[in-house]
Formats: sequence, structure tokens, C-alpha cells
Amino acid sequence: MHVPAYAAPAPGEPLAPTLIERRDPGPHDVLIAIGYAGICHSDIHTVRGDWGPRPYPLVPGHEITGVVTATGSGVTRHRAGDRVGVGCIVDSCRTCADCRAGNEQYCRSGMVGTYGAIGRDGAVTQGGYAGHIVVDEDFVLPLPDGLDPATAAPLLCAGITTYSPLRRWNAGPGTRLAVVGLGGLGHLAVRIGHALGAEVTVLSRSYKKQEDAVRLGADHYHVIDSVERLAGRFDLILNTAGSAVDLDAYLSLVAVDGTLVNVGAPAAPLTLNAFSLIDARRSLAGSLIGGIAETREMLEFCATHRIGADVEIIAADRINEAYERVLSADVRYRFVVDTATLPVEGS
Amino acid sequence: MHVPAYAAPAPGEPLAPTLIERRDPGPHDVLIAIGYAGICHSDIHTVRGDWGPRPYPLVPGHEITGVVTATGSGVTRHRAGDRVGVGCIVDSCRTCADCRAGNEQYCRSGMVGTYGAIGRDGAVTQGGYAGHIVVDEDFVLPLPDGLDPATAAPLLCAGITTYSPLRRWNAGPGTRLAVVGLGGLGHLAVRIGHALGAEVTVLSRSYKKQEDAVRLGADHYHVIDSVERLAGRFDLILNTAGSAVDLDAYLSLVAVDGTLVNVGAPAAPLTLNAFSLIDARRSLAGSLIGGIAETREMLEFCATHRIGADVEIIAADRINEAYERVLSADVRYRFVVDTATLPVEGS
Repeated sequence: MHVPAYAAPAPGEPLAPTLIERRDPGPHDVLIAIGYAGICHSDIHTVRGDWGPRPYPLVPGHEITGVVTATGSGVTRHRAGDRVGVGCIVDSCRTCADCRAGNEQYCRSGMVGTYGAIGRDGAVTQGGYAGHIVVDEDFVLPLPDGLDPATAAPLLCAGITTYSPLRRWNAGPGTRLAVVGLGGLGHLAVRIGHALGAEVTVLSRSYKKQEDAVRLGADHYHVIDSVERLAGRFDLILNTAGSAVDLDAYLSLVAVDGTLVNVGAPAAPLTLNAFSLIDARRSLAGSLIGGIAETREMLEFCATHRIGADVEIIAADRINEAYERVLSADVRYRFVVDTATLPVEGS
Repeated sequence: MHVPAYAAPAPGEPLAPTLIERRDPGPHDVLIAIGYAGICHSDIHTVRGDWGPRPYPLVPGHEITGVVTATGSGVTRHRAGDRVGVGCIVDSCRTCADCRAGNEQYCRSGMVGTYGAIGRDGAVTQGGYAGHIVVDEDFVLPLPDGLDPATAAPLLCAGITTYSPLRRWNAGPGTRLAVVGLGGLGHLAVRIGHALGAEVTVLSRSYKKQEDAVRLGADHYHVIDSVERLAGRFDLILNTAGSAVDLDAYLSLVAVDGTLVNVGAPAAPLTLNAFSLIDARRSLAGSLIGGIAETREMLEFCATHRIGADVEIIAADRINEAYERVLSADVRYRFVVDTATLPVEGS
């Protein structure tokens, strides 16, 4: 089956319309007509080769919502017509201790990413900037009633990437939570943290987003270069900044037994003073998206609390422009590609 | 009151016998005749100025056991004749949230260290390589029956430094614990971890201490440069090495949701790859000694489980030689100064 898509033909080259092949759905596969695909910063890193070589042409996109149009004979979880989502993972070994514990993202054999990975069938996976996708039913997520498919698409990566550590480190009533960076991840962290009952502070580089932060549910807003008086203030800091930050400065804001969690992944090594941890029994942690069951839970949570991303919906022919705007932080807060605008014929 | 002691006259100079002044016991003070004082690596760092300037002459020693010889009029916790210990903390503000939570070591005003700090009375504190010490009763710890005063002395720093993180990170039955480095801290970590019920692995630089490790209670022993097959094996790694280590290599041995805790404090910055944390939702943490209540609990625990340090008891005139041997890791596993050997008159 050939479907229209937008692909990077080579590292660093602009994305262009094309046709890609999808496998015929097997007994446990679900065929999904994609409606929306969010543009994640990691799409850009990946297609540009920042995170190592990938096969090309490469179709990014792992924040996918759509509708089931066909199911394999053995599929029990989904039916044609169901609204569904697909995130960053389309397969894993399912047998290792981490998969069995619901941590498919940490699968010991390596999870199969939604694009640029080698699937179980030996073919390169291709992502969501496309008309359809074929995914094993176990990695297809029901989209609960009440979630809008465009604003829900970013939940599949940005949402679960923030929800998972907030849950792991018990953000809730009484938690003093700081979110570093108000972008695609950060704005959802504020909404989810607020809905979990935490007291949410946004730490940003300027006052430009203060009004947004309050609207999203933040209780406080501080500019990073004047935070000395917040020393020891936070139980949990979620660092969503993709670039390297002054970890010692942020750790000084963490209370005894508190944690600074990185969900951004700067390429440069992290450096910090050992005493920044020892001085207050602090932890520096990292977290990668979330497992499949937890992603289902997150979608239910967001439906209950009416949480979606702030999105700018674009046509496919604006993807390259959107990439430039993401790199200059000129989006509030997520671009979502409307796949109805894909050319019916590839180039 | 003047008491005999061994002091560093200046940074880097050999310790020499002297007389120091102790304050007269106030209403809440306890006068303790010191029996033994352990030699902690941090004594050496401190008197040599590695951790910043200190007042001199300086009497180190914060692993102290002895007997109460007098008490102030308001003292209720201790009586003359009681066997007691004093660790790294002799005072704190007692009013901040961290002190109230029993974390005096993280006191927001700064704990008062047993030596080289400025006490509440404005005088420089002087440590345990001395005949007597005067300490506020709240920072004097009962030495439970069954603990030997010489082998218990190192519990007051090395013991609590390892016990506190093992408890904080829930080492117990089912925990796969690795201890990096088998020295003063490490050998107690093995004993305490084993007594807590954890499965204990020692990671060392050579096979030289394998027999000791097993005797101390280790279930497994591995040399650090051949541990790839242990990837993801440990729930908790306690790094007792004082020097910088390859954090990425150690983190690769930590399971999903596991933690690497540093209790050593290398002066050089820590460096690590962000993915070493993100890849398995790992944490890198630090921990500093423990609070007063927790130190009492640790002493009770060690009495119950008959845990003490392996010690080499030395006369005071061998302190400088012992320092050199500590620096070359030539001690199994802690030097303890017998204060009965202090010259009665200082130089």
C-alpha cells in the first residue's frame, strides 16, 4: 500500500512530498487514517542527523491521532471507526522485565521507534506526516471521548513525556513543582502539574510568557536570572529545556530530598558539582516518554481534565517553515500538521 | 578547661600534640571523656585545606566515642557514666524546616561541624583527637549496649553516611545493591546493606579485597573493568569512592528507576551524558551523613546486628603516619585513635 507523506530525502534537506509504502496489515495490525501529526523538536533533531545516522528518505512524526479504518483478523482492542492515537513506540520485545512492567520505552532489546527504526518485519519505520499508518494493536491507544484530535496529538509525545515523570515523582497536592522552559513540553507540564494538584512555578528566560503561564495554570512565574531567593524552594523541578542549562543553579532551588528531572536531551555532557547533590540529598534524574499503559492513563487523565496542547494547525507544505520557527522558539506551543493537506500523489 | 589534643598547626603541616581550651559546660552541655576517635578521609581533606580555608590550629575527628563525666544543670538526656558518641554535627539552628524534619545535616543556616566551624558561642569547634569534648546534649548520642567503643567510633561518620542513603533509597530484601569501593565507608555499607537484607555486590578496582568482601557479607564481587554484562543489574549503587569515577559506566549498571548515590565528594565537577539518566529513568543522587535521630537509629541497628568497623587502633603519635596510609588506601578499614595515648601535657 502506498500512502502520501512528507519525508526528508537526506540529512538536513527540506522535507518534500512523496509516497511511502506501508505494510499490509497483519493479523494483529491496525490500519489508521491519520488526521493530525504534531511536530516535535526531536523530529527535527532526527531528520537532521543530530542524533546519529538514520535511513532516508525519512518521514518523521510520533504525535499521531486518527481513525481506525481496518483491523487484522486477530485484533481485539480496536475496531474500524475508533478514534486512536500513536506515540513514539510501535513495538518492543514484550518479554523483558521492563516491557512486562509496562516500561516499553526502556525495553532491554530497544523499543521500536515510530520512525527511523527497524521494525520486527525488517522494514524501516516511517512516522505520522503521512496519510495512513499500520501499527500493532498493542501500541495503538484509544483516544477518549472529549479529546480533540488536533490538540490531543501532542499529548502522544509531549504529554506523556511530562506526565510520566510528574507521576513517577509524585507531583500532587502539596508538591512545589517548577517547570523550566515554557515550550511544547513545558506548557503541557504546567497544565498537567496543575491538574494533579501541585503548586506550579514556571522558570523562564524572560517575562514574555508570563500571561500564558498563568492562563495555563501556573501559580508563580520567575525569570531564571533572579531566583537566588528561591533556594531550596522546590520539591520537583522538571527541566524541559533542550539545551544545556546551569544544573548547579537549578539544583540549588531544590529542597532536601527533591529531584531535578531532565526530559530534554542536550547533546553536550551534563556537568555539575557533587556538592549540589550531596548538600541536600538531591537527585538529578532523567525520564523518557512513558509506557503504553501509562500513555493510556495519561490520555484518560487529559480527557477528564480537558487538557490538550495549544496548537497551530498547518498544512503539510508549511512543515519546513514550521521547523525553522520551532528552532527559533516561535510557536505557542505546538505545530500540528493537518494530514488532509498532504498531496494525494507524491512528487 | 584545657585538654590534650593533636592538632594541625597550619594547612598541610603534620599534626602535633597541643593543649586546647574547651568551654565550661553550660546548662545543656555534656562533658565527655573521649575514648576513641576514628580517622576519616575528610579529616585529612579539611586539615590540608582541600575544602577551603579553616582556622588553625585545628583538631580533627568527628567519629567519637566516650563516657559522660559531667552534665549541665538542665541536661535530661544523659548522665555521668553513660557511654556516648558524637558525630559530625554538634549544633544546628533547630528551627528551620529541615532541622524540624530531623535533617540537621541540611540545616538551612548551616549545621555546626564538630571541628573547624564557628559554634553558637562564637568559638571555633575542635574535634575528637582530644581528651575531652563539650557538646550540647541534643547532639550527643547514646551508645547502645553491645557496641564496642573502638569499633563503633567509625559508625558516627562512615556508618551514618552509608546507613542514611541505604534507608532513604529503601535497601532491603529484594534490593540489588552495589557498593563501589571497599574502604572505610564501603566496608560498612556492605555490612549494613547485608543486614538490611539487600543482595550486595561489591564493585572494586582489583580482586585484592574479594575475600574481605565475602566476610563482610557481600553476595557478589566484580572488578570494575569487566562489568558490561551487569548492565541494568542494580536497583541502587552506593558510590563511596572519593575520587572522580566514570559515571556513565556506573549508571549503565543501574536498572530502570534505579539510583546511583554519591557519598564521596570529588572536588572535580561530575560529568555525564544526559542519556545515561534518560535511557532508564535513572537518578544520580548525593547524600551527606545523616540526621541526629537517624544516627541514633543507626547505632541501635548496628547494636542489634552486631555491626562495627574493622579498625586498626593506633596511638596518637602515629596519626600522621596513618594519614599517609589512608591516602594510599593502606588500611582495613579504619584507623581509630586511642585517646588514652595523648600526651597529658601539650607541647
